[in-house]
Order: sequence, then structure tokens, then C-alpha cells
Amino acid sequence: MNSDTPRREVASAIAAVALDHLSNEPPADSPVVRLRSPEELATLFEKVGVPLELGHKLPAAEADALVDAAKLIVDYSVNTSHRRFFNQNFAGPDPVAVAGDWLAATMNTTGATFEAAPVFTLMEAALLRKLASFAGYPESGPDDDHGGVPPGLFAPGGSSGTLYALQLARHRMFPTITTEGSTGEPVAIFVSNAGHYAAKKSASLLGVGTNAVVAVESDEEGAMLPSALDDAVGQAEADGRRPMAVIGTAGTTVTSAFDPLNDLADICAERDLWFHVDGCWGGSALFSERHRHLLAGVEQSDSFVWNLHKMMGMTQQCSALLVRDPAQLGPCFATGADYLFQPDKLNAHLDSGDRHFQCARRIDSAKLWLTWNASGDDGFAARVDHAFDMAEFTRSALRERDDFAVVVEGSFTNVVFVWVPPELRPLPEGLEGVSSLDPADHKRMHALPSKVKSRMQADGIAMVGYQPIYCINTYRLLFANPMVAESDVADVLDYIARISAEEWAES
Amino acid sequence: MNSDTPRREVASAIAAVALDHLSNEPPADSPVVRLRSPEELATLFEKVGVPLELGHKLPAAEADALVDAAKLIVDYSVNTSHRRFFNQNFAGPDPVAVAGDWLAATMNTTGATFEAAPVFTLMEAALLRKLASFAGYPESGPDDDHGGVPPGLFAPGGSSGTLYALQLARHRMFPTITTEGSTGEPVAIFVSNAGHYAAKKSASLLGVGTNAVVAVESDEEGAMLPSALDDAVGQAEADGRRPMAVIGTAGTTVTSAFDPLNDLADICAERDLWFHVDGCWGGSALFSERHRHLLAGVEQSDSFVWNLHKMMGMTQQCSALLVRDPAQLGPCFATGADYLFQPDKLNAHLDSGDRHFQCARRIDSAKLWLTWNASGDDGFAARVDHAFDMAEFTRSALRERDDFAVVVEGSFTNVVFVWVPPELRPLPEGLEGVSSLDPADHKRMHALPSKVKSRMQADGIAMVGYQPIYCINTYRLLFANPMVAESDVADVLDYIARISAEEWAES
Repeated sequence: MNSDTPRREVASAIAAVALDHLSNEPPADSPVVRLRSPEELATLFEKVGVPLELGHKLPAAEADALVDAAKLIVDYSVNTSHRRFFNQNFAGPDPVAVAGDWLAATMNTTGATFEAAPVFTLMEAALLRKLASFAGYPESGPDDDHGGVPPGLFAPGGSSGTLYALQLARHRMFPTITTEGSTGEPVAIFVSNAGHYAAKKSASLLGVGTNAVVAVESDEEGAMLPSALDDAVGQAEADGRRPMAVIGTAGTTVTSAFDPLNDLADICAERDLWFHVDGCWGGSALFSERHRHLLAGVEQSDSFVWNLHKMMGMTQQCSALLVRDPAQLGPCFATGADYLFQPDKLNAHLDSGDRHFQCARRIDSAKLWLTWNASGDDGFAARVDHAFDMAEFTRSALRERDDFAVVVEGSFTNVVFVWVPPELRPLPEGLEGVSSLDPADHKRMHALPSKVKSRMQADGIAMVGYQPIYCINTYRLLFANPMVAESDVADVLDYIARISAEEWAES
Repeated sequence: MNSDTPRREVASAIAAVALDHLSNEPPADSPVVRLRSPEELATLFEKVGVPLELGHKLPAAEADALVDAAKLIVDYSVNTSHRRFFNQNFAGPDPVAVAGDWLAATMNTTGATFEAAPVFTLMEAALLRKLASFAGYPESGPDDDHGGVPPGLFAPGGSSGTLYALQLARHRMFPTITTEGSTGEPVAIFVSNAGHYAAKKSASLLGVGTNAVVAVESDEEGAMLPSALDDAVGQAEADGRRPMAVIGTAGTTVTSAFDPLNDLADICAERDLWFHVDGCWGGSALFSERHRHLLAGVEQSDSFVWNLHKMMGMTQQCSALLVRDPAQLGPCFATGADYLFQPDKLNAHLDSGDRHFQCARRIDSAKLWLTWNASGDDGFAARVDHAFDMAEFTRSALRERDDFAVVVEGSFTNVVFVWVPPELRPLPEGLEGVSSLDPADHKRMHALPSKVKSRMQADGIAMVGYQPIYCINTYRLLFANPMVAESDVADVLDYIARISAEEWAES
């Protein structure tokens, strides 16, 4: 008989490398990243005997070499669990979520059918109901009027969730589109000019075109102006485009701004438009009694996408698309493949696959189920509140110093700011300060963050993102890791100030 | 300072449950599934103190209860690593792949940028180049004429890969579609009538409509007839549809039939159609010198989707979309978000995100890279050859017995058959045998597999799929697990024979 014992031994050794990383909080003095060039990385893997490029007639590597390669993966990947990783809207994965992801990977199955995933199918449905209750959607349960169809689905990321939501929107407007296709009638989709580019990418894929996406004016923080939406809808109609959907953003990527969802909902109701809410980043505010008000009105939306792999510490990917009316999922996505969704097999009504675009699907539910149970609702609320508190602390700290200026006021978890050169202090906050810069200073200040970031990466001290606002590169601190303390923020600000001063002097 | 030590301890305990499952091959006498109803599963989780439904004001569960729940997940999920799990076109995940998936989950990052995923970005590019070399696509390398753009991308499953491929096809035909949207000009997409329903789902999502998908006649095994394709293209034109793409299937879901790709490529070349190959299941034949010929012609395709999470034992999800011309990815998918793809940061040209529909993406590459290196090209070939050998053994075994009849000849890894009642033996193979049944026998035989499967699940003996062919439910054994031995097949056939006889007598 075959034996796969050697194989399992290698696997266990690699798993031990992962477990070691999982079991210990990164020491404060460890690097966030050990930055190496592609060429240097290639050399490192060559040296352990497992080159990154997989050569022609690839031989099997020795077990020890594979374990060494696994260690290189850990050592030279970005340590997103580190408390000074502020680079992205995910950070500090919850260790329970990581272990839950392992468990789901180990049981390797697909979420499409109850038959192949009995426990996970029930967990997924329970999670969708629980998430929908936070969104204020109509109550649902395993024995409800919808035949227990859960109010949504899990998507492989926020962009895919938005794509599926816009397909639902289009399907409601053009019920024959799934079979007959588009007639080419131009439509319009409205999203704030600070909203996520998933709207454009989805419009492109759906065949309505990126020109169909109307970037609605937002206020200085990035929240859509309802009057501007009203105007934009009217203008689109005047231009011969049929308004199809409004995307309200709950937590923009750059400034974590929240559109006034109630106002948007009113406009959608009045004009019979599909109202989709992109809560990929800010949806988690719903967990917090203190911050839930930011999403007031989401309960009026038709669909709502929410990435739990962002603020809530799930591993990539854990994205829920919630829908007000679960009965729309089947007609929009079903094909009824008879080799998979046999009506005569056990528990076939629980199969999610025929309410979904995807067929075989990775299990994204187990980690969320375990972590939510490990945390309770209060634990989830605490994670969100901590992110907000750290952002508030950072805004205060920046305002107490004259070597920084906040560029966008900000009311949630993102803090956007510039370092201010000595000769320009104090710089007023926001647009006023940036506008006051003379062109030469503006240009020099704009060039700083990329240099500072490169040094930060080379030193491994921290990772912080930057992006242009008012045409000037601004730093952006994002808070998602619950272990971040005020001292971490203070350290990073000091570091940015010191390096910026050096780079400014040399620029 | 905060401490997350208790959190990491719970996580380690859950990880230990996963590790235990990973480290040991399932004993032959263990159940493939412990079948329970949704209500029974709910009771089991309630009993350990962590109900499946997440109640209102959910409290945090005790650590011990969470570990018990993790054990329930393992015990009551389907054991897809078991040698008698023949149910789906994935089985027996490679332990190294599972550990590689753990490692990637632990490093929790996104595949969109080199900055966030330096090692994984290089691994992904290397894998795409290596896979493309097996497909016979033009040579590419980190320093090639394409600026090192890898020849494809990783998608969250085969359906998504097909969706992206069809968008590329449409973009080539209508270069302005990404911005301006569809004019509503009806198009046609051709796939065999045994092809995957992803074509229809994609057509629906793209807005061309499922009616645009022409199901081209195939032979008895399920391979497209080139003459039928030629006719179908002509007919579509006559019907006012513009032919856009042909999907050649390399390994159909039900019978693992291979379309004659060279013939299809000729027709596509002649008519200037995009040629996409769906090798989700059968693409892995390319690893084997003995079976590579089944995909002869794939090197002429424009795109090729290949699920490594099927035959190659990767965990869900590991799906590569290869493209002949990598330069088409950017124009088709880019939006150039300035907060993410800053041209002035280090190594920005390596960022994959702006050549992809998705933004943040789970890392699907590390497990494949580790497993391929652990196996070498020869190990990958051996896995494919073993699957084929087991299928051949099964076909021979079935033909030596008169209580079974092969329903589709089959030339690769899928074996499709019926159990034959005593009074109808011997039943000729294929359509001839099925056609010879009188309606009453046909009906009774059709009803058997669902009953047998239910008992199989209840006994936990095995999991085997079934689906209608020639309007009669047929069993389908799929081979992907390299540990499967001839004795496993023999045991399952004996079991099916015994239970079928009992059910037949009672029917």
C-alpha cells in the first residue's frame, strides 16, 4: 500500500514554521519587513537550494531545503501582525481567525453544497443572518418565509462582492438580461468621487463601461453630497443614461469617510434605484454602539458588502455580500447544473452554489464563526472602538505638534497628514494649508513620502502608506490591529519626523 | 501594554486540532462522513456550548468550548482526504499544500502589490511562467520583452478565471468596451454541450446573456465535434450574432472528455475568434508525458484556465488563468488607483493588482510553489498518471463484472457507470445499453443512485457522485487522491453492488 508518511512529515515541519509565527506576538524590536530586491530574494532562495523560479525539469527538493524555504517565506514577507504595520486596511490578523482558516484549509472542501460542506454551510448561513441583523435587514432564520435562504453570500473579496451586487441591481432593472443580454441601453451607476475603484472595474466587467460610473462630488472629507447625487442623477438622465444603482460608501479607502446613507436611501427610494452600500472598510462600525450611527440608513439598502478581513482581523478572504431580498439570488445566478445540484439528494435546498456566481468555493466562514464566538459581540465592538481610539489619539498627537499637519479632518479610523518642513510651520490643517504652499515647496513636500517610505522599508521600522490628496502626497495611518498602543503611534511619528527632516535637507 | 497571549493560546489549541488531522492519514475504517441532519448538527454544537446560530448579544465562548467546536468541525465535515472520497474533482489534498496554505494564511497579506507581498509576488510570477511553459505558450521570464509581466493571473476559482478570459476576449473584439460599455450587439460564445456552466454564468454576468452561449454538439464521450462548431458559428452569424470566443474544454466535469483543441484552434484562427481553453479539470494532464497529447493544440489558445486545486491536490482555491499575450491584461483591467499603485514607490512595476479585476487578493501561490518543489515535475506527473491508472483499473474491473455497465467509454480520469439489476444482465455498454431498457426498468434504475448515495453517506462508507446521462442517473468515480489503491475501488464497487441489490429488491 502507498504511504504518504514522508509527505506528511514535511508538511508538519512546514506547519511548525507557521505555528511558530502564529504563537508569538512579534517583538517590538523585530523588523516589520526585511526589504530585499527581487534579485536579492532570488539569491536567498537559491542558497537554500529551492530557487524561486521553477526550472525546466524541476527536481524534487530535499525536505530540509523546503523547510528552509518556508522559513524564508516568513522572514522576508511583510509581517502584517507587527504593531507598526499601518500600511493597509488589514493588519494584525486575529490568531483565532488564522487557526480557523487553517482548519478550513485542512478540511479542504467547497462551500457550494451542503453535501460537501455540511457544517460550513450551516455556519455560513448563520453568519450571514447575524451580519444582516447588524445591518438592520429584515429578520431571517433557518425556517423563515424564504425557505431558510440566507440573506447573502460570501465573495472572494470586496470587488467581487460589488460586482455581484451590481449584477443584482441590473437584473432587477432588466429581468431578461441574464438570458438575453444587454440591449446596449446606457445606464448610470453613482458612487462618490472618493469611492472605491471596484465600481469602475465592475462596470467594465459587466459590460456597462466605466463611463457609466458617475463620480459624485463629495465634501472635503470624502463623503458624498446628497445634493450632488440628485444633480448627477438628473444630469445622467438628461444625457440619455438610465440610472441603475447608487453605491453609498461606508468608510472610504483613503479617509474612512461615510456617505450620508439615509439621504442617499431617500433619493434611491424616490427614483427607484438599487441602493448598494460599500462597507468593505467601514461596515465594521456596525459592531460598535459608539460608531454604528455612521451607517445610519444602511438598513434601507438593497445590498451591502462588508469585508471582515479588513478591520475585524480575518485573514484574506472574508467578504460578505448581504442582500435585503434573498429570493433575488437564485434567479440572478442559477443555472441548475444537474451533476451538482441534484434535487433528489439529501438536504439539497441548503446548497448555496446555485445562488452564487462561483461554483467550487473556498470556505471563508469557519474562521469568522470561531473568532466571533471567541470574541462575543462585545469583543468585536472593542476591536472597532480601539481602532477609532487610536485614530483619535493620532489626530490629537498630530495637532499638538507643529511638525505635522492633518490634511483631512477625519472622523473614523484613517488619519491623513503631511510632515511640515521647519520653515513652513505651523501649516494650517486641510486644504487651506496645502493651498498656501508655494509651488516649489509643494513639489518638494510631494516628493518626500516616497523617499521616507523607502527608508522606512529599508530600515524595517514601520510600514505606512501614502497617496496624493489635493495633489500632494500625504501619509495615511490605518488602524486595524488591536495590539497597537499609543507608544507605537508616537514612535512612528517621531521616526517620520526625523527621516523627513533629513530628506528635506537633502532635497 | 496589551497582551494577546490568551488569544494565541486558544488559536494554538485550534491549530493543534488542524495539525492532528494534517499529520495522519485517515484510517481505512474511519468514516468518510458522519452524516447528520442540520438539526442534529445544531444540537451537537449546542451541547459543547457554542451554538451554530450566533445569537443576539453573543457572549464570548470559553476556550475549551471553542476547541470542542473545532473538533466537531473536523468530525462532522466530509473527510476529503479519505481514500474513499470519490465525490468530486478534488480529493486528497497534498499535505504540503495544506501546510503551504497555512503559511500563506499566517502571513496574511494581499497579492496585489510587491510591497505587501514581495516573496509571494515573485512566486506567483514564477508559477505562471512555469505553468505557461507546460501549456506551450511563448517563453517568458522576469526580464523578457513584456517587462517581466507574468503570463496570467490567479483567480478565485475556475468560474472566475473563465469570466476574466471572456472579458479579455470581448475587450479584444470591442477595444472601447471597458470605457463605453456594450452597444448591445449580440455576440456568440461557443462551448460544447458537455462543457462547464461557468460559460453561461459568465455570459450572464458580462451582460451578453446566456442565450449567447451556443452549446455545440459533442460526441458520445462529450468531446466537441469540430464540424458542429463550424456549423454553429455559421448559424450564429446567420442569426445575427457576432462570434466572439470558443471555449475548448480539456476534461469535462462529468466524463473528463477532451475537445480536439487543434481542430478548434484552426477554426478560431480562420475566423479570428478568441480561443479559450477550460482546463480546470483536465489541464493537469499536461504534467504527464503519457497524457499531455490530450491537450495538443492548447499552445494555440489565447487563454487557458487551470485549477490546481482539483487534480493536483492544492487546497481550494488555486486557479491559474494563463494568457498568451500578457500585455492585454493591463488595458483590460487597470484603473490605476493612486492610493495603491503609486508609480514612485519601490518595485512598482511588479505589482499585479492593476492587471487584475480583484484588488486585495488571498495568496494562492505559496502552497503550489512549495508542493511543486516538494514533488518535482516527476512527482506532479506521477499524481496525474496515478489518477489515470486508477480510472483504467476501474473501467477494467467494471467490464469484468456483469453487475455493472460502463455508460460512457471514457479516456481519462472519470468513470461513469450504472449498476445492473440481475434480471437485466449483461447490459451493453453506453447508450446502446441504456436505450435497451424498457421505461419501467429505466425509471427504477434512475431512482437507485440517490437512495444508494444516501445510505452510503449514512454509513460513512464512501462518497461517490451521480448525475443523469442519457436521462438515467449514473455513478461517477473521480480520481484525484494519489493514495487511492485498487482495493479501495474494489471495496466501493462491492458496496454499491450490495446496496443497489437491496434497494432494487425493495423498489
